[in-house]
Amino acid sequence: MAKIEVAYDQYAQETIRAIGKGVLLASRDAGGRPNTMAIGWGTVGSVWSRPMFVVLVRHSRYTHECIDATGDFTVNVPYPQMADDVEFCGTVSGRDHDKFAERGLTAAESATVASPYIEECGLVYECKVVQYTDVVPENFAPEVISEFYTGGDFHRVYFGQILRVAVDEDFATRLGLT
Amino acid sequence: MAKIEVAYDQYAQETIRAIGKGVLLASRDAGGRPNTMAIGWGTVGSVWSRPMFVVLVRHSRYTHECIDATGDFTVNVPYPQMADDVEFCGTVSGRDHDKFAERGLTAAESATVASPYIEECGLVYECKVVQYTDVVPENFAPEVISEFYTGGDFHRVYFGQILRVAVDEDFATRLGLT
Repeated sequence: MAKIEVAYDQYAQETIRAIGKGVLLASRDAGGRPNTMAIGWGTVGSVWSRPMFVVLVRHSRYTHECIDATGDFTVNVPYPQMADDVEFCGTVSGRDHDKFAERGLTAAESATVASPYIEECGLVYECKVVQYTDVVPENFAPEVISEFYTGGDFHRVYFGQILRVAVDEDFATRLGLT
Repeated sequence: MAKIEVAYDQYAQETIRAIGKGVLLASRDAGGRPNTMAIGWGTVGSVWSRPMFVVLVRHSRYTHECIDATGDFTVNVPYPQMADDVEFCGTVSGRDHDKFAERGLTAAESATVASPYIEECGLVYECKVVQYTDVVPENFAPEVISEFYTGGDFHRVYFGQILRVAVDEDFATRLGLT
């Protein structure tokens, strides 16, 4: 299915709703090998007068190394029937699994970044990191610390300028939006 | 006009589009005095399994002191005809102006946070800060530094958990959404 470019905010609502169910962050390691992980957190909007996708990645994750290697990532919004793929990609590490091969996913060449996009996903954001910082342990509300960080391993925050958004030609129809 | 509570993501698309044109961040200082500033940057989504509004405020701003005093803020999406109010609130400081009085804006009591909301705005997000961190000067893409930070004065990043979203009953009609 060919993908067509759309405005960065055309599917913002669907993307924000999809994030809670899990979307796929795709990247490439220093050797060029594609990698992906599931994320359930992220925000979309505009910062530094640029369309922006903010994602958080724990320091322990392989994706962290990959994003640091290339300075970019893609966010891939899966179709609802790909829930098993998302769960798998959120369970194992790219350090010892080729998640693309094991799940029959296709790492396609992005138009604007080194990170691949996932062909089987209907909606893709190509993002270049323009700032990264770390969450500060002592600046958390206590309920967030107790829920997510009892083992430490805090998150890095990546601000990814959205360079391109592309969707399957029949994306809206498949999601029942039209 | 009475405001009614809606799902946090019901107007995400309209909010993301409004951010670029300017929305109003409202807060309250340590003495209880309401304050507001215009922001053109922000992102909406889900982080730490919570609906989240991410905003950035320069350290020099009066709003920075206010948010640090209360630990919360509101984001107020104005109607298009309020463009002059937004411009004014982005030009002068709450340190030496009562922007509410000078623009005839009403600081109303929020349901869940100390910060007021702006009655004249159609759509309001009440947000509690659950994490804050600072951008890191050396982690910027060079084009962002040269465009926004030649004078320093870097931004603090506030992650505001969205506790409540409320809209004017006729919000959708007034924006031509229905």
